[in-house]
Amino acid sequence: MTDGTTDLADWSCPAPLRDHPVVVMGHGGGGALSAELTEHLFLPAYGGEVLAGLADSAAVSLGDARLAFSTDTYVVRPLAFPGGGIGDLAVNGTVNDLAMSGAVPAYLSCAFLLEEGTPLSTVGRVADQIGAAARAAGVQVVTGDTKVVDSGHGDGVYVNTSGIGLIPEGVDIRPGRARPGDVVILSGPLGQHGIAVLSVREGLSFGTGIVSDTAPLNGLVREMLLVTRDIHVLRDPTRGGLAASLNEVARASGTGVVLDERAVPVPEPVAGACAFLGLDPLYVANEGRLVAFVAREDADAVLEAMRGHVLGRDAVVIGACVAEHPSVVVARTALGASRIVDLPLGEQLPRIC
Amino acid sequence: MTDGTTDLADWSCPAPLRDHPVVVMGHGGGGALSAELTEHLFLPAYGGEVLAGLADSAAVSLGDARLAFSTDTYVVRPLAFPGGGIGDLAVNGTVNDLAMSGAVPAYLSCAFLLEEGTPLSTVGRVADQIGAAARAAGVQVVTGDTKVVDSGHGDGVYVNTSGIGLIPEGVDIRPGRARPGDVVILSGPLGQHGIAVLSVREGLSFGTGIVSDTAPLNGLVREMLLVTRDIHVLRDPTRGGLAASLNEVARASGTGVVLDERAVPVPEPVAGACAFLGLDPLYVANEGRLVAFVAREDADAVLEAMRGHVLGRDAVVIGACVAEHPSVVVARTALGASRIVDLPLGEQLPRIC
Repeated sequence: MTDGTTDLADWSCPAPLRDHPVVVMGHGGGGALSAELTEHLFLPAYGGEVLAGLADSAAVSLGDARLAFSTDTYVVRPLAFPGGGIGDLAVNGTVNDLAMSGAVPAYLSCAFLLEEGTPLSTVGRVADQIGAAARAAGVQVVTGDTKVVDSGHGDGVYVNTSGIGLIPEGVDIRPGRARPGDVVILSGPLGQHGIAVLSVREGLSFGTGIVSDTAPLNGLVREMLLVTRDIHVLRDPTRGGLAASLNEVARASGTGVVLDERAVPVPEPVAGACAFLGLDPLYVANEGRLVAFVAREDADAVLEAMRGHVLGRDAVVIGACVAEHPSVVVARTALGASRIVDLPLGEQLPRIC
Repeated sequence: MTDGTTDLADWSCPAPLRDHPVVVMGHGGGGALSAELTEHLFLPAYGGEVLAGLADSAAVSLGDARLAFSTDTYVVRPLAFPGGGIGDLAVNGTVNDLAMSGAVPAYLSCAFLLEEGTPLSTVGRVADQIGAAARAAGVQVVTGDTKVVDSGHGDGVYVNTSGIGLIPEGVDIRPGRARPGDVVILSGPLGQHGIAVLSVREGLSFGTGIVSDTAPLNGLVREMLLVTRDIHVLRDPTRGGLAASLNEVARASGTGVVLDERAVPVPEPVAGACAFLGLDPLYVANEGRLVAFVAREDADAVLEAMRGHVLGRDAVVIGACVAEHPSVVVARTALGASRIVDLPLGEQLPRIC
């Protein structure tokens, strides 16, 4: 045995995982393989009710406070890309996960995993990005950790951030709350982050000028909650894209989701790059967009509030929840046909966040 | 430029870091090099008052609650060692960091960083360890993340855990609160974790039967707080060992610390291994020990309470705080001489946690 855990009780692989006895890139992609790992490996080992809710952040009680708590590790390559870098993602990604519970993000932890031999200037630049992004999002980094691994066992800089924030009274935003009749709103155009990262990967330069949408969404969510505290679901379509987010909500709530493909905004350069590369923009990662599920009677007011914020000025209704086809996402195409939008298997583009 | 951050503003290396322009293993060792990185790189980039306090966990306010918040990444090799594994460390280490603020650890996040090709059985065993350790410590894992990096850019399994817990009313435990007259109490013998890990590293097998002391210290701290809420400082001497912990307290408080070397319990096999390897037990990592600074009038009662708990039954007074030699740790040796116990430069044994 080579894994160094031979003195532990033998671990028997649950049946649904047996097609993939070793870790593949897709296990980190936010799609069906990630979901399998969570359902059949992590949840049986240490899952409780909160973890099983599979929200972007956990809602927990501590004293009299209701908190959101979230964690993410950032492994994007390259470390910098048009529109941002790993430090921006590390702050905005975790801020956004908290905001997707309706929480007001307050404090972040920041843990660096460094590879021996990495220039300190690289670490310094990432740290400066983190500082600038934290100030922009209005959060404080209050605790940290640094570990170093030998050369060849890392990749320069990985960053984990975790975050906590207070959930305002009366707010209960989670995937399970979508219900038939809800209107689905998208805050802005799709696919910029994934394509921006891809465009600077070695050998894949498009020169298209596509810039990552990375941004902190807590300000936008604050404006939306001023309209109504009864937002049902918020989700930021990162790994796995909008398709993964809609599927997660459909499964958690048991509601069917109908997506109007013609309504989904995709910038021309993103659409062009996707066509060239054979990618579906519905599956490409975003880092500054959110999708909201709200009651029909609140939809107009929420949409108006979103359009009043710089990060929501292109917000549009892209679909609705229906009682038909429970837990399944169906797209109406431009030609009037219908197709099932499934959870992706893995990520089309590994290591984009 | 090869670091992928060329479009960021140029980063100028602060003078104290210029001796080490690239990351070395010692930057993750919890000693002087780690402290330099924190002081001259992370704090200028994103440090505020809380981060600058450099406690094992951050004490923050959220709503009406006072919380402790902490993060640690675990990169120990091998993944299993006598007495435990990376999953135990990932839970106990973060639980202990929270307990060192006097907080009651409640919720953990758990983020896996997996290398492509790692057997799922290895991931499963680590997850099972995490579950068992969380149940033993009385904490819940409520949120998580999984990232996968390409083969050759990781090392099987790395785990980050962050944690939050409530700080009871009237409790204010932090390194800066040590003061002349305080008594320094150690909860048990030193050096077992570091030597246990080293003993199973390739080519360094001692066969001494030394077992890691990894354990959750929140139960012990609860007993101590029943005696007095006015415990001044708690610290678990992990990376950098007791020497690093005492130095951090001395520096944060401006107090001198006198250590009675004869009083420090070191198990015979640990002492033997240290002598053989040229290691000083004061600098070897522990994962289930704590050092407490309490007012002289509370010392006897706290010591008695500690001895009544299974993790503190060998607790002893090992020193005191003095007004002389402010911020400096001095050991009285068995021969009656004095020597300065300095912060280690790096870690004697890399990747032990």
